Parts: sequence; C-alpha cells; structure tokens
Amino acid sequence: MNPEEFRAFGHRLIDWIADYRAGVGERPVMSTVEPGSIRAQLPSSPPARAESMDAVLSDVEKILVPGLSHWQHPRFFGYFPSNGELSSVLGDYLSTGLGVLGLSWQSSPALTEVEEVTTDWLRQMVGLSDKWSGVIQDTASTSSLVALICARERASGYSLVKGGIQAVPAPLVVYVSAHAHSSVDKAALLAGFGRDHVRTVPVDAAYALRPDALAEAIRHDIASGRKPCAVVATTGTTATTAVDPIGPIAGIAREHGLWVHVDAAMAGSAMILPECRALWEGIEGADSIVLNPHKWLGAAFDCSVYYVRDAEHLVRVMSTNPSYLRSGVDERVKNLRDWGIPLGRRFRALKLWFLIREQGVEGLQRRLRRDIANAQWLKSAIESTPGWRVLAPVPLQTLCVRHEPRGLAGEALDLYTQAWADALNRSGEAYLTPATLEGRWMVRVSIGALLTEREHVEGLWSAMQRAAAGAQ
Amino acid sequence: MNPEEFRAFGHRLIDWIADYRAGVGERPVMSTVEPGSIRAQLPSSPPARAESMDAVLSDVEKILVPGLSHWQHPRFFGYFPSNGELSSVLGDYLSTGLGVLGLSWQSSPALTEVEEVTTDWLRQMVGLSDKWSGVIQDTASTSSLVALICARERASGYSLVKGGIQAVPAPLVVYVSAHAHSSVDKAALLAGFGRDHVRTVPVDAAYALRPDALAEAIRHDIASGRKPCAVVATTGTTATTAVDPIGPIAGIAREHGLWVHVDAAMAGSAMILPECRALWEGIEGADSIVLNPHKWLGAAFDCSVYYVRDAEHLVRVMSTNPSYLRSGVDERVKNLRDWGIPLGRRFRALKLWFLIREQGVEGLQRRLRRDIANAQWLKSAIESTPGWRVLAPVPLQTLCVRHEPRGLAGEALDLYTQAWADALNRSGEAYLTPATLEGRWMVRVSIGALLTEREHVEGLWSAMQRAAAGAQ
Repeated sequence: MNPEEFRAFGHRLIDWIADYRAGVGERPVMSTVEPGSIRAQLPSSPPARAESMDAVLSDVEKILVPGLSHWQHPRFFGYFPSNGELSSVLGDYLSTGLGVLGLSWQSSPALTEVEEVTTDWLRQMVGLSDKWSGVIQDTASTSSLVALICARERASGYSLVKGGIQAVPAPLVVYVSAHAHSSVDKAALLAGFGRDHVRTVPVDAAYALRPDALAEAIRHDIASGRKPCAVVATTGTTATTAVDPIGPIAGIAREHGLWVHVDAAMAGSAMILPECRALWEGIEGADSIVLNPHKWLGAAFDCSVYYVRDAEHLVRVMSTNPSYLRSGVDERVKNLRDWGIPLGRRFRALKLWFLIREQGVEGLQRRLRRDIANAQWLKSAIESTPGWRVLAPVPLQTLCVRHEPRGLAGEALDLYTQAWADALNRSGEAYLTPATLEGRWMVRVSIGALLTEREHVEGLWSAMQRAAAGAQ
Repeated sequence: MNPEEFRAFGHRLIDWIADYRAGVGERPVMSTVEPGSIRAQLPSSPPARAESMDAVLSDVEKILVPGLSHWQHPRFFGYFPSNGELSSVLGDYLSTGLGVLGLSWQSSPALTEVEEVTTDWLRQMVGLSDKWSGVIQDTASTSSLVALICARERASGYSLVKGGIQAVPAPLVVYVSAHAHSSVDKAALLAGFGRDHVRTVPVDAAYALRPDALAEAIRHDIASGRKPCAVVATTGTTATTAVDPIGPIAGIAREHGLWVHVDAAMAGSAMILPECRALWEGIEGADSIVLNPHKWLGAAFDCSVYYVRDAEHLVRVMSTNPSYLRSGVDERVKNLRDWGIPLGRRFRALKLWFLIREQGVEGLQRRLRRDIANAQWLKSAIESTPGWRVLAPVPLQTLCVRHEPRGLAGEALDLYTQAWADALNRSGEAYLTPATLEGRWMVRVSIGALLTEREHVEGLWSAMQRAAAGAQ
C-alpha cells in the first residue's frame, strides 16, 4: 500500500473509528454470537491475489463488529475498565505509523528517552519517591513474572549464571494472598517455583492479606528448611479491590530478606489522587510495583508500567549483550531490552505521553473522582434497597453485589445470581462480571469506562433490578 | 478527547504519517543525537493542565523525529527488516481504535476467531501441515521463553504443579547453537535452567549447528546423570542467516525425548516461497516454531506467531481459571490467555489479516523474491571486487561482509571495519549493523525494507566503498 492509498483509507478509518466511538453506546455491550460463527464466515485459506480495502472494511463492519464485546461502551462494567482514551489512541497510531524499534538506545534514541521521561512523570503523579525507575511492559502478567524472576535471582545469588533454580540448596518459597490475581500464581509457576512452594496466605474480613498469617507461614517454612523468597501484595485485588497492608507486609519481608512485589495493576491509577494514597501506605518499602495505565487511567492497551528500586539488579538479571546489539554509547544510556523479556520494543511511551499531555494531570484526576463518586452513589442505592447487599468494602470503583431474595441460599442462590447476571449481559444493556467470593457467586460492577456518567450507572442499577426480578 | 476532536487530529495524523512514509528516504537513516538530548528538551514534570494537540504534534516534529533512526527507510540495512506495511498499520489502527480485549473468547469472540483463522492462513502459506496450531505473541523472545518452559514441563512431568524445577531429580539441560539468538540463551536462563545447564553446540563451516556435536553433548550429559530437555534449532541465524539442519537434529532429539524448538523468527517469512522450504526440511519433526511476521513479511510490530503441535500441552502449562474469567462456553472455545504469558490481549490478528488480504500471497511472494535477488546481486558485486569478501553463505537476504585492505589484519582490521561502518552510519546515507563473526568484526547488510529497490542497494554498495576508502 503506498502512502496515497494509506492517506485515503486512513481517513476513512479515522472517520469509522470516530463514528464507532460516538455511537458505541447504542450497541449491545456484549456480543452474543455462537462459538465458531465468526470463523465460519471467513475463508479458510488465504487469498492468492490482493483484495480491495473496500472488501476488508466491509467484512469488518459485517462480520467482525457483531462478534465484539464493546469495552469502550458507557455501560461496560465488566472485569476492570480498559480505557483507550482517544488522545492515547492517536499516540499509538503515531508509534505504529513510524514503525521504529527500540532494540537498543541507539536504534531509536527518542523511543527510550520519551519512555524514561513519561514513566518518571507517572512516578511523580502517583507520589512515589525518586528512588524508583520505570519501564513499560505489555501487561501485569509479564511485569509480575519479571518481578518473581528478579526475586528468585536475588534470593539465589544469581543462580541463573550458575546451576539455575534447579540447583538451589533449599527450595525458594513465594507468598501470595488468597485473593491475588491469577497471573501472580501463574508467574510463580512459570518462574519455576512450583505449586508446592507457593503459599496462599489467608485474608481478613475485608479480603486483605493477614500479616500475622504471613509471618507464621514464613516461620514455618524456615523451620522446615525452605527459604522464603518473595511476597506479592495487592493494592486493589481483582475480586473486590481489597488492599493488602503494604507497610506491615514490607516490615515482615525486610526481617527475612524477602522481595516485596506490589500488584497495583488496577488501583495504581487511583494513586494520582492524593486522597487515595493511604491505600498503599508503606509502598516505599517494596522492591517492585506494577501499575497499568491501560486500565482505568486511559492509555491504549498495552501499557503496563513496572517500577523497581534496584534497576541495576533488574538489568543484571535480564541483560544480554551480543555484538550485533552493541553500540559505542552503551555505557551512557539505558538499553531497555535489559529491563524486560522482549528484545524488540514498540514506541509504547507515545500513548502515555499523548494521554498525560492532552488530559493534564487535573483532567485525569477529575475523571477518576467522578467514577469513585458514582461507585459511592451506587453503593448507597444498593444498600438502601431490601434484599440487595454490597459484599465487600468499596475503596475505589468496584462493587461486589448480590441480590438475596428471601428463602434463597446455597446453590439455589448461586444459580439465581448467575441467571440474572447472564440475562443482563445477554440483553446487551450492560456488561457485568459474575465471580465467586467465599465460594458463592456474586456480581462485580466495575465502574470507570471513559464514557460512563451517573446516568449510565443509574441505568445499570435499574437494569440489575429488572434482571433480578425476571430471574426469580 | 471527544470523537470530533479525534476525527480532526486523526486526519492530521494520517496525513503526517503518509507524508513521513512518502519522504522517509530523504531523511538521514540513523539518528546522531547525543545521549540525553531528547530528554533534556522535555519537561521533567507532567503538565497539571491539558495541553493542546498542536503543542504535542509540534514537539513530535521538532524534538522526537530528529531522535529517531528510520526503520522504514529504503536504505535501512540494519539488524533485520522490521516492516510495517501500511495496510498492516491500518489493521493495527483498527485494533487500537476499537479498544477491545481478549481476556477470554467471550470477552470479544471475533478477536480470538480472527486470530485462529489468520494464524492458520499463515500456516498454509509457509507449508506447514495441519498438525500445527498458532497463536500470536509479542516477540520471538517471548515465544522462545514459552517454548522452553513447555519443554521444561514436559521433561519434568509437569513439575510446575509440584515442586517446580527446583525439585527435579536430575538437572534438565538445554542445547543451543553457538549462533543462536541472544534471546534463546536469555529464555533458558529466565526459565530457570541456569547457565551450567545450557550447552553451546559448535557449528560447521557454514555456521550451522553440528548434529554430531549435539549427539555427543547429549550422550555426555546422560552419562553424567543429567537429563537432556530441549534443543533450539535456528532457521536463519542473526549473524549470518545460517540454517541448522532440522531433520537430523529432530532425529537425535526424538531418540532422547528432547523438545525441538525452531527459531525461524526471521527466515520463517521466506517459507511462503516454495523454493526456500528446503531450508527447514524436517520441520514437521519439531515441537514448536516461532516465526515473526513483523520482520520481513510486513506485519506492524509486534506480531510473533508461535506454532505448536501439542496445543493441549501448551494450555496445560499456561492455563489459569479464576471464576471472574469463566464463561459458559469455555468447553467449546479457545481462551488464548492459556496460550501464552499475558492475560490481556490486543486484537493483534487484524494487522496480519489486513496485510495478507491487501497484499495477497502472491504480492508478498513477489516482494520477498525481489529482496533475495537484490541480495544475490550485491553478493556478486562484492565478490567481484578486490579486497572485499562475503564471509558466509547467503541463503536469503543478509550478507556478512568485510573489506580487507592489504596488510590489515587482527585488531587493526577490526578497528578499520568498525570505523568505516560507523562513518557510513553517521553519514545518514545508509544503516548497517557491525557484528562479530569468529571473533572478528564484520558488517551485516540485511536487505528487505519495504521500500528497498535495486537502486538503493546499488547506492549502498557505492557508499560502502566510499566509506571504506575514507577510513583507510
């Protein structure tokens, strides 16, 4: 495709996206297509000859869009928000259009330096000290894997350049909350610790990790000849946005030399609000943090920022230095390939840089405060309605909700909860995530899509009540 | 940013990219800015108030662009090509603009199904049997890490759900060629094998892994009580595009139960040409393959396709299943979060789908054949010029070159080689990658940028001769 064709189709695509975003609220939120139905409409073999872009764009409209659940919809309350603010989208467009890569600083200096500047802006925005250095990874899953590998290497005296974790004298142990994200558990298994060496620490009534239980688990492992290696604390768990007490956890960790990784993938965005920072009090005692601007904050996916206190350690674990990647300035620059797993890196910082500049810190703060206020409004509405319960504290913008009609309990209540949530999702009116809490199904309402105003939350609440009534 | 502002600035950005691509050949290829000079031009703190997009776009032009090395430039001959074909760029724009995520099939059915279809198209294009299933990862570094973790888990009987690799009875060993990519070595270390358990197998005169040396190394490890686990073969190594003999390697691996991972990150694209497929003869005997359409083929970065024969094994190693990610159709669909490390996934397939449709298989084949012919032309030109040598076979589009003036050898020759390559790169006329081969510096010329025609290769050859003469 030459630049003039790109210009023509690019303008059409921009208009299409502008129209899509302007009208997304009119679409059913969740796709209800059957498994295999999209695939069945596409040719099973690639085209030998070039096709027209008209044909491609027409298939997008006719075949693909009905197969999408619309994450940018104002009544999307599922999972956590994944906001692609349109200014950030443009930043990503610039990155893809330029098509430059950061294999090393030298291979595109601005790519590295804008990433340094932008992750440092974000550091200041969330109130971290200048002891922290940031780098953009794809997702929190990867950031947490990097963190646990770094923990493994610190605890084992850099086993990777010797016999590996297969040759450690005493097995290394990782501690996670029973409410930690599934990716943390996955990271520990991929890093080679093994399920037998991942301790699930119990939580308190507010679903936060219990420091006393952590201390006890550590003592037990030490007494049994194992070596405590890392603890993962969460600021804003996935099920309920519970906040683990980082200060006390870091205190215990320090005593025994454990690495403290903080998963603030979701709630880290809220730290741009000074009034929320008490939620991660003690954060300066951590070794690494992951914070996803591609969630609530609005950076186009994927943009997960990983902060470390000891960047030299990270580089020592991750670095490679083949001749074809060396340059004369290596001693004076950051080579971000040594800050994570992939060698090739997009110019990802642009989408964060565009976002922060176009919105300003105050603009971002205003939007997050709107969402927190909407969550508090919904909490009050639910709590004042008989039969409805909010099941966990609401420190931010996610509510765990159940409707408990008289006489329904146990599995019957589970079936009822799943039925009304499913009916609501299938109606296309709104999108919620059913999940379990203490072994029972409930419904998560995660407020914070870009377009979600009070009226949409009010509409959701009506729709929830209708769906629940309909499922009885 | 509202949709109308997006429309206005989006059109401006499309025009900017169209102009950039049309005029990129007029720019110096490599940036020569000093370390820290981009950072110094940017505010050290984030803006409190929203800034205008005019200010942002003006900074892009004035501050960022001078700090870029232009990978899409017709005289970019560095590393390997990283082609962002403009049709593929539009596919990525659609993905970012839609802002949908694939946490599960249900969370956006089309995202998963287009990925299934498109990776299957590519499978057919490169002549693999239908025993292979594909998934898009970010980079080959990640794909190779996934491969070695899968190998580790097969060899250890799923140690990850037990004591992990720290509890294996005999240490697991990985075999790689001395010319394997640095990311393979890094993957083995991150997966926990440890340097002591990564064997570097010697290569033959064409820089291909020697099966006899592999067999010998395996025998030695078995005799010493260690357990051979995986071998990584490369189709198209980074230094010279050497091709390891996959058939014989797979034969030895089968005998001892090793996992065979094939790194065809670069040369995999060439397999769309039937005349090139002899280069990976025996490929059906492998367990996993990585192939990067974001290199020569033209998919916008990042798009690394990972193929496996035993998808069930991959899912068993990578899967997580928390309640908030479950859906009623899980038994009937692919949940691609279980096919790799990250949970969140972009709609990456769009950029590959747009590329293949807009170019057609024949269009892609024509371009790759053009590049191979250009490489053969340059090889002949160099070989017929006194003092110049092509140092390795040229099976594809990359040449390893040295100018060896009479009387220059050893370190003096190294300094001379680095001097003329550096002078050429700094001139902005073309971009080459200096690297070492058998301990001596040489210059890699990797042909295959989208815009590179014969005239640019001719221009490069003149510039090389001028630079070499100037450095004497």
